[in-house]
Amino acid sequence: MTDESGCVRLPVEAVHDLAFRVLRHAGMSEPHARAIADVVTAGQRDDCQSHGLYRLLIITHTLRQGTVSGTATPVVHDRTPAVVAVDACSAFSPLAFEVGSRHLAEKARTVGIAALAINNCYHFSALWPEIETLTAQGLAAMAMTPSHAWVTPFGGGTRPTFGTNPMAFGWPRPDRFPYVFDFATSAAARGEIELHRRAGRPIPPGWGVDHAGHPTTDPDAVINGGSMLTFGGHKGSALSTMIELLAGPLIGDLTSLDSLERDGGAGGTPFHGELVIAFSPALLGLGDTQGDTQRAERLFDAIVDQGARLPSQRRFAARERSLKEGVPIPLDLYHEVKALLD
Amino acid sequence: MTDESGCVRLPVEAVHDLAFRVLRHAGMSEPHARAIADVVTAGQRDDCQSHGLYRLLIITHTLRQGTVSGTATPVVHDRTPAVVAVDACSAFSPLAFEVGSRHLAEKARTVGIAALAINNCYHFSALWPEIETLTAQGLAAMAMTPSHAWVTPFGGGTRPTFGTNPMAFGWPRPDRFPYVFDFATSAAARGEIELHRRAGRPIPPGWGVDHAGHPTTDPDAVINGGSMLTFGGHKGSALSTMIELLAGPLIGDLTSLDSLERDGGAGGTPFHGELVIAFSPALLGLGDTQGDTQRAERLFDAIVDQGARLPSQRRFAARERSLKEGVPIPLDLYHEVKALLD
Repeated sequence: MTDESGCVRLPVEAVHDLAFRVLRHAGMSEPHARAIADVVTAGQRDDCQSHGLYRLLIITHTLRQGTVSGTATPVVHDRTPAVVAVDACSAFSPLAFEVGSRHLAEKARTVGIAALAINNCYHFSALWPEIETLTAQGLAAMAMTPSHAWVTPFGGGTRPTFGTNPMAFGWPRPDRFPYVFDFATSAAARGEIELHRRAGRPIPPGWGVDHAGHPTTDPDAVINGGSMLTFGGHKGSALSTMIELLAGPLIGDLTSLDSLERDGGAGGTPFHGELVIAFSPALLGLGDTQGDTQRAERLFDAIVDQGARLPSQRRFAARERSLKEGVPIPLDLYHEVKALLD
Repeated sequence: MTDESGCVRLPVEAVHDLAFRVLRHAGMSEPHARAIADVVTAGQRDDCQSHGLYRLLIITHTLRQGTVSGTATPVVHDRTPAVVAVDACSAFSPLAFEVGSRHLAEKARTVGIAALAINNCYHFSALWPEIETLTAQGLAAMAMTPSHAWVTPFGGGTRPTFGTNPMAFGWPRPDRFPYVFDFATSAAARGEIELHRRAGRPIPPGWGVDHAGHPTTDPDAVINGGSMLTFGGHKGSALSTMIELLAGPLIGDLTSLDSLERDGGAGGTPFHGELVIAFSPALLGLGDTQGDTQRAERLFDAIVDQGARLPSQRRFAARERSLKEGVPIPLDLYHEVKALLD
C-alpha cells in the first residue's frame, strides 16, 4: 500500500475527493469545501506538507471551535472598473479568493491593472495557488497579507509588531510553469522555529530576539516572549511595513497588531484582509507582446544558464512527479485524515 | 560665506534657481530644466548629496555627449481608465513623471488603483521625490525601475544580470511627513562600492563577488569583471527579478541586461522604463477612513515607541534644517556648479 518512502500514493482527484469529504463531514458548505480542497490538494501535490492535507487537521479543529464560519457566502462589492472587494464574512479565504479572482482577472484584462481586496477572512493558505490562478490566465500578479504580530522591526525593535507578512508574485510563461515566488518577510517561517524548539535544536542567528530584544539562538526564547526578525535588515523591515499598510489600512482591514489583539491569546488563525493586484502585459505594454515575452525569457535564461535557480522549481518538480506517479501522503497523516471521516 | 562645516547655505529657491540656470545654459528646454531642478534641489535640501546639485555635473556632461535629449516633449498615451503611459522620447525621466503623475493621480482618485508606465527614459533620479508627489495628494504609491545589469542572482550566480533595481513606497500621513522608503535591491549602492575602491578600503562581505562568482571584499574585483549581490539572499534576488519584469517587459520596455547591452560599454546612464502604481485609500477601504488612518498610525507608533526607526527620518530632519537655515552646499561643489554657467 505504501511506496519505498512510507507514503501512500493517490491520484490528484482522489486526494481532492478525500479533502472534500473531510470538510463536508466537518460541516463545511459545498463551495467552501471545494475551494479549500483545491488549495490543500495543490499543497500536497507540490510537496508543501505544511500547506497540504495536514491543514485539514487544523481546519476541522478550528471549525469545531466555532470561531470561523464554514458556510458564509462571500459578498462581492464591485467598486470601480479597477477594484473589487470581497467580504469573506469571517470564513476562510479560499472561496472569497475564488469568487473575487474572476472579477479581478476580468478587470485587469479590461483596464490593465486591477486590485482585489479580501476583507474579514481567516487566512491559512499559501499565496502561490492564488498567484498561479492568475498567471494561468496570462496575467502578472502580486499578493500580500499581514498575519499576527510576531516579528519585531529592524534596528532596535524589541516587541512583536509585524506579521510574517508573506508577499508573492507571478509572471506567466508560455508553455511552461510560471515564474512564481512566495516568501515571508520574516527571516524564517514561524513553523520552522517551532520545529527547532520541538527538536531541541538552536536556531541560526538572525531569526529572532528574546524578550529584551537581544539576539538569541534559543527558539523557545523567540516563541515565548521574544520576537522573530525580518529578512534583509532594514529593507525587509520596510517591506513588511508596506505589506501591513497595503493589505491592512489601505483596504479598511486589520494590521497584524490588530489581528493578534482581536485573538486575545486564543492562539487562533490570523484574521485580516488580503490585497491582490493583477496586471495585463497586453494592455500595459507597447504592442510588441512577443518581444516582451522574449525579453522576460532572456532574463530567466540568464539566471538559469549561470547555475542559479528560479524560485518554486522544487515545487514544480514535485508536481510533475505527483501527476505521473500519484501524490505521496505520509502513512501516518493519511490515517489521521481518514479518521476525520469517522 | 561658508558655515562651520565649510558649506555655503542658500535658500531653497536660490538652489532651484541655480540648478535651473545651469540646465538652461546647457541647452535644456524650460520644462525639462524646471523638472530636473525640482529633483536635484529636493536631493540637496534633504542632504542626499548623490542626488543633489552634484548630479548637474553628470547631466550637463551627458547632454554635451548628445545621447540624451534635453528638449524632447513627453508624449502621453491615455490607455485605459487605470493606465497611462508616457513616452519620454529618450530624455531624462523627471518631466515624463511630472506630466504622467497628474494623469496617474487623477485615475487613482477615480478608480482606486492606477499605473503609470514611463517608457524610453534615462533615469538618474531617486524614486522618493516621485513617491512624495503622490503621498502629498493623499495617495499610497509604489515605484520601481531596472538599471544596468550589475548584480548577480543569489545561489550560484556568477554574472551581472539584474540592475540595482530600486523599489520605493509611500503612505500619506496627515499633518506630518509621509511614511517613505526607497532602497536598492542590491546589497549596497554601486556608488558606495566605487567610494570604497577610490579610498582603497575593503567592502563588507556580502556586497559582491569576483569574476568567477567567489565572494570578495575587494571593491575593484566587484566593479571590474565581478558582480554585485542582492540584499536578503534568495528573497532579495526574487524581488529584483520582479522589478525587472514589472518595470521592463510588462510595460514593453528594457531589462537591465538589455539596457547594458544597448549602452555598448559607453558607461552611460541606464536607459529603460519605470512603473509607478498609485492607490486611493478612500476607494479601496470600507468607508472608515479615520479608522484606517488610526490603524496605520498605531503601527508607526508601535515601531517608534520601542526605539526602532521609520525610514527617511534622516532625510526629513535635513529637510527641516534646510528650510530653516538654508540648504548646505559644500563650497567645492558650489564653485564647480557655478562654473557650469561660464
